[in-house]
Amino acid sequence: MNVLLKGGTVVTHEETYVADILCTDGVIAEIGDNLSAADAEVIDATGKMIMPGGIDPHTHMQLPFMGTVAKDDFATGTAAALAGGTTTIIDFVIPSPQQSLLEAYQQWRDWAEKAHSNYTFHVAITWWDDSVASEMETLVEKHGVNSFKHFMAYKNAIMATDDILVASFTKCLELGAIPTVHAENGELVYHLQNKLLEQGVTGPEAHPLSRPSSVEGEAANRAISIAKTLGAPIYLVHVSTEEATDAIRYAKDHGHTVFGEVLAGHLVVDDSVYQDTDWGKAAAHVMSPPFRPKHHQDALWKGVQGGALQTTATDHCAFCAAQKAMGQDDFTKIPNGTAGVEERMMVLWEKGVNDGKITPNEFVALTSTNTAKIFNMYPQKGCIRVGADADLVVWDPNQSRTLSAATHKSAIEHSIFEGMEVQGVPETTLCNGKVAYHKGEIRSQSGDGRYIDRPTYAPFYESLRKRKELNQPRAVIR
Amino acid sequence: MNVLLKGGTVVTHEETYVADILCTDGVIAEIGDNLSAADAEVIDATGKMIMPGGIDPHTHMQLPFMGTVAKDDFATGTAAALAGGTTTIIDFVIPSPQQSLLEAYQQWRDWAEKAHSNYTFHVAITWWDDSVASEMETLVEKHGVNSFKHFMAYKNAIMATDDILVASFTKCLELGAIPTVHAENGELVYHLQNKLLEQGVTGPEAHPLSRPSSVEGEAANRAISIAKTLGAPIYLVHVSTEEATDAIRYAKDHGHTVFGEVLAGHLVVDDSVYQDTDWGKAAAHVMSPPFRPKHHQDALWKGVQGGALQTTATDHCAFCAAQKAMGQDDFTKIPNGTAGVEERMMVLWEKGVNDGKITPNEFVALTSTNTAKIFNMYPQKGCIRVGADADLVVWDPNQSRTLSAATHKSAIEHSIFEGMEVQGVPETTLCNGKVAYHKGEIRSQSGDGRYIDRPTYAPFYESLRKRKELNQPRAVIR
Amino acid sequence: MNVLLKGGTVVTHEETYVADILCTDGVIAEIGDNLSAADAEVIDATGKMIMPGGIDPHTHMQLPFMGTVAKDDFATGTAAALAGGTTTIIDFVIPSPQQSLLEAYQQWRDWAEKAHSNYTFHVAITWWDDSVASEMETLVEKHGVNSFKHFMAYKNAIMATDDILVASFTKCLELGAIPTVHAENGELVYHLQNKLLEQGVTGPEAHPLSRPSSVEGEAANRAISIAKTLGAPIYLVHVSTEEATDAIRYAKDHGHTVFGEVLAGHLVVDDSVYQDTDWGKAAAHVMSPPFRPKHHQDALWKGVQGGALQTTATDHCAFCAAQKAMGQDDFTKIPNGTAGVEERMMVLWEKGVNDGKITPNEFVALTSTNTAKIFNMYPQKGCIRVGADADLVVWDPNQSRTLSAATHKSAIEHSIFEGMEVQGVPETTLCNGKVAYHKGEIRSQSGDGRYIDRPTYAPFYESLRKRKELNQPRAVIR
Amino acid sequence: MNVLLKGGTVVTHEETYVADILCTDGVIAEIGDNLSAADAEVIDATGKMIMPGGIDPHTHMQLPFMGTVAKDDFATGTAAALAGGTTTIIDFVIPSPQQSLLEAYQQWRDWAEKAHSNYTFHVAITWWDDSVASEMETLVEKHGVNSFKHFMAYKNAIMATDDILVASFTKCLELGAIPTVHAENGELVYHLQNKLLEQGVTGPEAHPLSRPSSVEGEAANRAISIAKTLGAPIYLVHVSTEEATDAIRYAKDHGHTVFGEVLAGHLVVDDSVYQDTDWGKAAAHVMSPPFRPKHHQDALWKGVQGGALQTTATDHCAFCAAQKAMGQDDFTKIPNGTAGVEERMMVLWEKGVNDGKITPNEFVALTSTNTAKIFNMYPQKGCIRVGADADLVVWDPNQSRTLSAATHKSAIEHSIFEGMEVQGVPETTLCNGKVAYHKGEIRSQSGDGRYIDRPTYAPFYESLRKRKELNQPRAVIR
Repeated sequence: MNVLLKGGTVVTHEETYVADILCTDGVIAEIGDNLSAADAEVIDATGKMIMPGGIDPHTHMQLPFMGTVAKDDFATGTAAALAGGTTTIIDFVIPSPQQSLLEAYQQWRDWAEKAHSNYTFHVAITWWDDSVASEMETLVEKHGVNSFKHFMAYKNAIMATDDILVASFTKCLELGAIPTVHAENGELVYHLQNKLLEQGVTGPEAHPLSRPSSVEGEAANRAISIAKTLGAPIYLVHVSTEEATDAIRYAKDHGHTVFGEVLAGHLVVDDSVYQDTDWGKAAAHVMSPPFRPKHHQDALWKGVQGGALQTTATDHCAFCAAQKAMGQDDFTKIPNGTAGVEERMMVLWEKGVNDGKITPNEFVALTSTNTAKIFNMYPQKGCIRVGADADLVVWDPNQSRTLSAATHKSAIEHSIFEGMEVQGVPETTLCNGKVAYHKGEIRSQSGDGRYIDRPTYAPFYESLRKRKELNQPRAVIR
Repeated sequence: MNVLLKGGTVVTHEETYVADILCTDGVIAEIGDNLSAADAEVIDATGKMIMPGGIDPHTHMQLPFMGTVAKDDFATGTAAALAGGTTTIIDFVIPSPQQSLLEAYQQWRDWAEKAHSNYTFHVAITWWDDSVASEMETLVEKHGVNSFKHFMAYKNAIMATDDILVASFTKCLELGAIPTVHAENGELVYHLQNKLLEQGVTGPEAHPLSRPSSVEGEAANRAISIAKTLGAPIYLVHVSTEEATDAIRYAKDHGHTVFGEVLAGHLVVDDSVYQDTDWGKAAAHVMSPPFRPKHHQDALWKGVQGGALQTTATDHCAFCAAQKAMGQDDFTKIPNGTAGVEERMMVLWEKGVNDGKITPNEFVALTSTNTAKIFNMYPQKGCIRVGADADLVVWDPNQSRTLSAATHKSAIEHSIFEGMEVQGVPETTLCNGKVAYHKGEIRSQSGDGRYIDRPTYAPFYESLRKRKELNQPRAVIR
Repeated sequence: MNVLLKGGTVVTHEETYVADILCTDGVIAEIGDNLSAADAEVIDATGKMIMPGGIDPHTHMQLPFMGTVAKDDFATGTAAALAGGTTTIIDFVIPSPQQSLLEAYQQWRDWAEKAHSNYTFHVAITWWDDSVASEMETLVEKHGVNSFKHFMAYKNAIMATDDILVASFTKCLELGAIPTVHAENGELVYHLQNKLLEQGVTGPEAHPLSRPSSVEGEAANRAISIAKTLGAPIYLVHVSTEEATDAIRYAKDHGHTVFGEVLAGHLVVDDSVYQDTDWGKAAAHVMSPPFRPKHHQDALWKGVQGGALQTTATDHCAFCAAQKAMGQDDFTKIPNGTAGVEERMMVLWEKGVNDGKITPNEFVALTSTNTAKIFNMYPQKGCIRVGADADLVVWDPNQSRTLSAATHKSAIEHSIFEGMEVQGVPETTLCNGKVAYHKGEIRSQSGDGRYIDRPTYAPFYESLRKRKELNQPRAVIR
Repeated sequence: MNVLLKGGTVVTHEETYVADILCTDGVIAEIGDNLSAADAEVIDATGKMIMPGGIDPHTHMQLPFMGTVAKDDFATGTAAALAGGTTTIIDFVIPSPQQSLLEAYQQWRDWAEKAHSNYTFHVAITWWDDSVASEMETLVEKHGVNSFKHFMAYKNAIMATDDILVASFTKCLELGAIPTVHAENGELVYHLQNKLLEQGVTGPEAHPLSRPSSVEGEAANRAISIAKTLGAPIYLVHVSTEEATDAIRYAKDHGHTVFGEVLAGHLVVDDSVYQDTDWGKAAAHVMSPPFRPKHHQDALWKGVQGGALQTTATDHCAFCAAQKAMGQDDFTKIPNGTAGVEERMMVLWEKGVNDGKITPNEFVALTSTNTAKIFNMYPQKGCIRVGADADLVVWDPNQSRTLSAATHKSAIEHSIFEGMEVQGVPETTLCNGKVAYHKGEIRSQSGDGRYIDRPTYAPFYESLRKRKELNQPRAVIR
């Protein structure tokens, strides 16, 4: 089945022009004027924009976490993604300490079979021994994994201490893979959590107090410094603070290869939500890192504009009210997570493009292309050109909507974007060349999504490789 | 006449892959495997790289300056460019104060008719009245000019004082053009020159003392601040100091649209050259801004790596020894200028790519694509894709050369890169689809070069336009 | 007449201890335990703090400006100062362009004869020729002036252009004096004022729009860079923006001798005041630089804490409602100025010490000692030790007050601090060893104040002097 | 026995003036003109400067370390200090893991009985349990200890991991003490050491490769962030890198209370020493952190000038050639340490004051007063005023010397300052009111030195205390 998009304005990360696009067999077959195709479904895109389908580099569908499982599974979660213009997600395989990486990887692959959208996986390094190193190799060589995640928080669970970071980053460099980190100092969080509980501050308002911005800034700087010392690249997930943004900037300004991701939520929601006298509303916003005082939002936008932050994500990990209630008497037991995979692009368009902070081309880079490049899926993904995968979104910049849990596709009953007015929404989403979403309706089927193999040694690796070669230590002859 | 490049590794600003490229009628007609064409000249590019032809955004061919005229004219200068892999130059129309911009523009167009390579012009704003504003409009609307240059130095000659900067930047914003500046505080230079002459320090060693780095840092920050205040973009030519790089970085980190250019010379030559006891050698390096103490080079490279500096140029303005001798008794009379249009790409490859500072893709961005984007010639220029102009360079990363005035194409008898060993040189240069340079030989003819029209409102302008609209001042109703 | 302060806690810029203080003949005669003096007025300071009297380095009493004269003259203004714990002001001699500096200086000295508190003068350089340079020498040698002020704004009036700055800073360096600047880019202000008037935005809300923060940031950086280039020190008055604070910080971090002053008003009042629908209230806040968006306050406090800003002032220049009304139809005609000399120390104590931003010792440094050191009045002023002038304030940290025009000593009918609650107020002020203010009552007489001679070459000048000597340019022998 | 210093120029951290000084009973009894005392030893200080005796906040006399004991014991080491104008050292009590802090403290007190100069101790926290916390209290309350040291390096020995840092900093805050850190990431050092040994790079040249600057930058930032999160102050010992200096600066610029110490050695010696083909010479420079590439020296001086670094020290820990030889085959076994307690002030004068980087007053602050203030010994120490301890140095700014192991007082046979020419040397040192050193001769006796009690809650603590009180977490009422 072919699809022909007529008369739209094509917007890529670097260009804007009017053209028809013909999609055949899952890929873009032709771009030009006055295209026609006998058997194609024709979509009139006049007055609309056609952009590469979004890529959300940070989701957790049906994640088993804190004694429960995230409500949105790979079916509902990826359907929500498509409804928001996102055609690929990068989820996380998170082995339990001592669990085989390959076993966990296979588990997640199984779960993801029912996905509507495309998907691929970062694999978390939650423990270390030689077998972990060896399975990293296998994942890279046989399973198309090129990124490994490290949690610097969650002491007594999945926290990666410095020795693990050093060992794993070293292995990543050896493999041409990219290490990523959740940057929060786990010891400080643990200390502050205990202190707050002792002081009788047990509600959601304690959550941000247990994870102040300096806790993230510290870990961000540590991860970057370790990577820099070893000569490895580094990618920071969900940067939420001025401190972490500054740490990235400092490293980039000193020649290091470092990437930063920001969540749509952190860009627009502030920490006043935790003061809500409705426990449920406050708890609905419990995620890590938490929402921050407003000046951090300004710092994050500046990071986006100046190039310190290159990708946007959601950390979509949806827990419903009943699950949140598990932490009724102890904020440390509230499952951490919020939804957003559907709203990400609309939020970024409204607050980014409509507010004059970023150009439409930069919007594409931030929602799709940069992620494709960093995780080496470009130009298969994140790109509009002949031969690229036909993952596209038809964007109506004039249509308005009020975001709400009442209308979103996610399985949960609250939204951190509740009530936000946006102008600029996805009208149609094509995934693998098929109309997956159109004007409110999900047309794709569970299982339509494909797994994406990602090779190592993305282009940014060239200078790191060269430096490694040049920096071999040499003994002085005496 | 067609040209078929066989088996090369195509390197763009974002991708690297092996393919054949067929050039027909001046444009890239086909990219693919196993291409053939009956009537094409075939060039074996196996083991070579094929990159977009370089664009040097800063040259002054046959410039009338300081009482003489630069030796390299549009014929010899652009032939040298082609020999170095550069297929387009952006030169400068510099009207005398009170001279009609259009008249000067026509003069430069006439001079440039004999160019071998492609060319286009920034136009300098050296004075101000309503007619200047009006002629800026004409240049934009009828002559494809989208950038205007301002000299903040050269008091009593072409210096643009703050009132001119404010007026001209405002006009640029109105037109969708981009203002550019030569950032040095002219009052300070004038003061220091006079003081040095009074103190009897009259040789080339006085030149850098009359233009210390803070003089550039000041002006860079001033130009950026004026642009920021007005909501206009800004492009800084020949950034040579840590201070100016920091000023750009600060502005970018605060969300402003600012671009920086660095010269190949400033990246690798330091100010020790002015201490040469051979007057001629010292004088040969007199240019403004001058070469700097070594730590500035490090800062510039960091700026290149971190994104503060996006383009590389040469300020090619070649004066021979006899011309330099005009300042024998007074360093302020030494014609300011050095050559480099031929060496730029080799120098950047050697010190950038070979030293592990930048990737080959970044090299392409820095020598070609970024300039094409900023000055709105992309994807006609700076790009390898079907339909783009066939301006290409076949690069041999394994071939070595010693740079020398003895072998360069420039008309002058000295080189600031004399004796530098490089590995990585252009083997063949295609300009407008024709082999213009091949293995040491210039094949193009004088007059083969074309003038490039550049439309206004480059893509980066979208957010500036939006902000201008949102920031209209509003009276409080009382 | 002697005064004996009993049992107070002495707080200096570096120490805190309990002691009695005996003041005799205008100086501190004894500090110790259990002091007594037969003929002394005894003041019980138990539970109170005794600190050096405040020094306000920036006031304009009875300034002729914008067609009128500031309401608070040297009598009412300095009485207000004493009521606020401030015992010395540094006011400004502002010659008209072409006016003799000495003539203007004498004029101000005459006006100041009626002062209650001590006083001294910065002299403004509003024009330039050899006679100005010569009179600067006379002022330094014969009149105890060691600081010269430069207005970078007020085009077509008293604006000092770059050539004047260069000439005057050079002269200051030669004399061992310190140049100071009002940092705003006058060309931009002029341009924006005209544009706003053209657009029909004529009320006080246009005032901040005509002087955005980048206008100050630019000028701050320019003044610093010029000073740095010449090797001169520099002092920035009324720093009100993040940009200017950053510029100071950048210079200090690069080894330059630069000082910054912040006004009490800028630390606590934001730009929402200009949106007041009561024209008079909005106009009452018109001063330059204007009050700023809130994030600048945070930046200023950080500057105070980190050492970028060393002194606090008020720019006390009081215009009454009738005077403000001169700009009813044109905001550029509203006399620029606000009061504050009385409230400065209370405001800084409340928002600085009580909020945990600064220590009591730092409070003393910021309100008195640092100014005394920079302008070379230390240890005569700003100091509590035997032999120092007995300018002291007895501070009650437990007493509260609501600041209001209804109760202040200033001659005008509004206050920018109206309604602010403070805890920590001056109870008694001693000036030249006499009780000048006590529990609400002014006891000093008009004319009690003394003029303070300030010698050049303050201690900070030592490294500048050394560097000047080391940096003499040298010709290369060829 | 009294001492009368006649006619010297008194230089304190804030003033310079000519006066006589009479010392009686160990304290300064009188400062004034034309002083006389019948029974006093009179020293003619005409043309000389009189400054507070130096305080070296970082020495390790007779330290048991890496299987041996530092050569300079409390007798030879403190004699060397006096010969260099330093009258007080702060040494370190370093308990072994599991050892009682009090026991170790007593051990060090015993060793120090033979000191010539005054002394006091930081106590290291090398392990943690409740008894450690309890002994910290005892040390504070009964033994005058107000600072605790943490080694972030030396894995498998005395390294303090994050949990220990968090616990100990929290305790310090509770006590009003100041935590200090040796900032190097121990995991990275361990990893790099092992890798280098594996690669066969075993000589002293491997030492700096195992501890690159990013290793220090990381730990500096971590320690500061942890302190900031907890609300505690922090002091970084031996800051040797641009990264760590920047980390301090960043924290200070964001309102945190942080102090930095720099070693005389790091200011003037660079890492080329490790390339010496004479193993012994290279090994003589092995200390941690190592000497650095030259650009770090520039950064450190800028830190000193701008206020990021407030104190100067030496980390005096003298190992002789025979001891260094223990690491002949394995650089990790070379005892870490160099001497310098004698040369510190001369080096800082020569490269700081004579080069125009700092003023003589700043020299006093950096060598004595700032340390006295931070560690709460001021105004007993670091001060010239009546009643202060008579610890003074008579400094001859005109006398020159060539520093050399041949003439230094230290017990070892090499000097990192070998051959350095200095102008400005101590002529006479008074300690506790007695002439302890005079023109090359040590006059003090072993045992003359006194232990200095240091109370907690130094003045800088006031704002931290206030913030702690204001920042108590509060539960939301629901």
